[in-house]
Order: sequence, then C-alpha cells, then structure tokens
Amino acid sequence: MPKFERIRYKPVPVRDLLLEMKNLSELMIDLAYSAALFNDKELAEDVLALEGRIDTLAYLLDMEIMVAARGDPKDAEALIGVSKVASSTDKISDAAADIAAIVTRNIGVHPIVGEIFEKVEERLMKAVVKEGSGLAGKQLGKLDLAAKMGVDIIAIRRNEAWLIDPSQKERVLIGDTLITRGTPLGVKLFKEVAEGKPWNTEE
Amino acid sequence: MPKFERIRYKPVPVRDLLLEMKNLSELMIDLAYSAALFNDKELAEDVLALEGRIDTLAYLLDMEIMVAARGDPKDAEALIGVSKVASSTDKISDAAADIAAIVTRNIGVHPIVGEIFEKVEERLMKAVVKEGSGLAGKQLGKLDLAAKMGVDIIAIRRNEAWLIDPSQKERVLIGDTLITRGTPLGVKLFKEVAEGKPWNTEE
Repeated sequence: MPKFERIRYKPVPVRDLLLEMKNLSELMIDLAYSAALFNDKELAEDVLALEGRIDTLAYLLDMEIMVAARGDPKDAEALIGVSKVASSTDKISDAAADIAAIVTRNIGVHPIVGEIFEKVEERLMKAVVKEGSGLAGKQLGKLDLAAKMGVDIIAIRRNEAWLIDPSQKERVLIGDTLITRGTPLGVKLFKEVAEGKPWNTEE
Repeated sequence: MPKFERIRYKPVPVRDLLLEMKNLSELMIDLAYSAALFNDKELAEDVLALEGRIDTLAYLLDMEIMVAARGDPKDAEALIGVSKVASSTDKISDAAADIAAIVTRNIGVHPIVGEIFEKVEERLMKAVVKEGSGLAGKQLGKLDLAAKMGVDIIAIRRNEAWLIDPSQKERVLIGDTLITRGTPLGVKLFKEVAEGKPWNTEE
C-alpha cells in the first residue's frame, strides 16, 4: 500500500490510488456506524484520521489524472469517470467522518437505538496486540479466529499503514492495531486475548 | 423489513428505520463500486432505485424523530445524534448514486482501472432465479455456495423488499433477484445456474 507524508506529486498508478480510496472509505463507513451505535470513541478517532488520509489520496489522484490526460481532450474524456468516482468516494468519507463526530463531540446516539443494535448486529472492535499475547507472531490462517472466536479481522493498522482485508498468510505483530468484526461477546474476548489474556489456540 | 408506498407518517420504530437505512446504504456502496469498476448497468440501476428508497426512509425517520421528541428540548437533545446519522447515511447514498450515474450516463471508468480490478477484486453480480434453476426452493445453508462456487449471496430482492445479508435458513424462490459477491469466474457460473444451467449441488 503506498504511503505519503506530504501532498506532493508522485507518480502512483491511478488504479492503486483508487483501490486504496475505495477500501479505506468502505472501512470508514463500517467503523463510523459501529462507533456511533456502540458509542466507541476509539473507533471514531480512527475514522477521523482516515478521513485525512482519503483527502490526501484524493489530491494525489486528481494530480495524477491531470498528468495522465497529457493535455489531450480524448484522454480527459476517458479519465473523467475515474475523477468522479474519486470525488464521490471523498464525499462518502466526509459523511462517515460526520457520523464519527457525533461520538467525538459527545453528542451520542439515543441509547434505545444502541441497545437494539447491541442485540442484533455484529460490531467492530479495536485491539492493540501486546507483548505476551497468544496472537503475536501467528498467521491469521493458523489462528482461525472465525471458527474459534466468531470474529474476523477486517483490517490491521501497522505503524501508519492500513492493511484492509488482510490475507490468511499475514502474521500478527506486537504493536499491530487490529480491527475485528464479530458478536459483542466475541470481540470482547478477542480484545482481551490481544492484550495478553491467556488463550489456548488448540481448544 | 418495513415497506412503504407513500411518504406519509407511519409509526415505525426509529431503530428499524435506521437499521434499514444503514444496511441499504452499505449495500449501495458495494453495488456502486462494482457497477462502476465492471461497467455493469444492471447494478447501477439498482443503486439508483435504492437511493429513492433511502430518501423515503430518511423522510419517515425525520418525522418519527419529531414525533418522538414530543415537544421536549431534552428529548430533542437525545435524538439529534440519530438525526445526524440518518442525514449522513442519506449523503452516503447520494454519493453512491453519483458513482452509479457514471455507468447509467455512459461516462464509464477508464478501462485500465477496470482491468486491474477484474484481476484483484471480488465483484458483485445480479442474477434472477428462473424456473428450473437448481437453486430454486433450496435453503442458502444447504446450497453452501461459498464452498461450492466461491460466492456469497449478500442480498435478495423479492418483489420490492430487500433482504440484506440473508439468513442461512432463507429459501431461494423463483423470481428472486440475488446479489452475489465472488471471483469474476464464480459469479459468472452462479448467474448461469440461477438462470437454469444444470448444476449438481452434490459435487
């Protein structure tokens, strides 16, 4: 996944930028609803951080498109669709950030709404892998968390990079932030295990 | 799932309206990206139809919230978060519709973008179940499409109602529109089977 520190033109393929924008915006929506419905500030803050990242990607993509059009009207015509997808993705991420801001600004969603979601809906949870955790150093496929805990890891934040929908071969590292989806009980257990609570993976 | 013909006040619980808006908007995003990246007009038209449905739900929710506030400032304060989530969801659905419009207006996304997605990304496909299809009358759990075809049914449109993330006990009916996610090859095979191509489910 490409990384950027400043918004300065770099030749990154349009498709890579668009794919990252798409994946991050979908993650943001998931995170934002879960943050609002379960009043989870940690998730809400991630949404706001991701919005900044999407903004950066949108700038880079717009520059890349301008360069790719090479001053040619035909090329511009062929590229306008990509530009429109990118600007819509940016709007989606803004709306997700608006939802997250309900939580960070302490407005909150009426408890009666949250309660029902608690019963019927899976939720997302964020957990940082601590030293001594039974997850550290293991491949996701080997952990088989879906079968053993009823949770899925939908994203890993490692330093400043996000791995969306990580491969089964990906190894969990100490310090990784994991975003997990599952039942309220499943994700709670998962968080405890990530933070070092003993857990027998051979169960 | 609640159904509405006209935008007239009906007492529907706020949480039901919000849950339907959330689920439909997430489906719209999925559909919209897949429509744009694979230039699929059928999916794009569903996105536009869903946008109308979300608009209706948003009106109903706003009315419900006004009624629920009962003229009381404290209640209004407790409900403003819900109202904000709903209006953001409406914006998300508008952005998804903008993406879909690229396809319905024949603007399209540059082929170089679509091609790469074809290789790395799962896609959505829409299929209508025809008489004689091996899927008709069977429960999703029994079909076990994930194992046998590498596809998941993420939504069923039955008449005007949408079942999002249908239960494994749900039975596929003739005339159902199924939205499937999977590899390009998997969803193509799935569409053929839904339309009546012989398929041995015991394979």
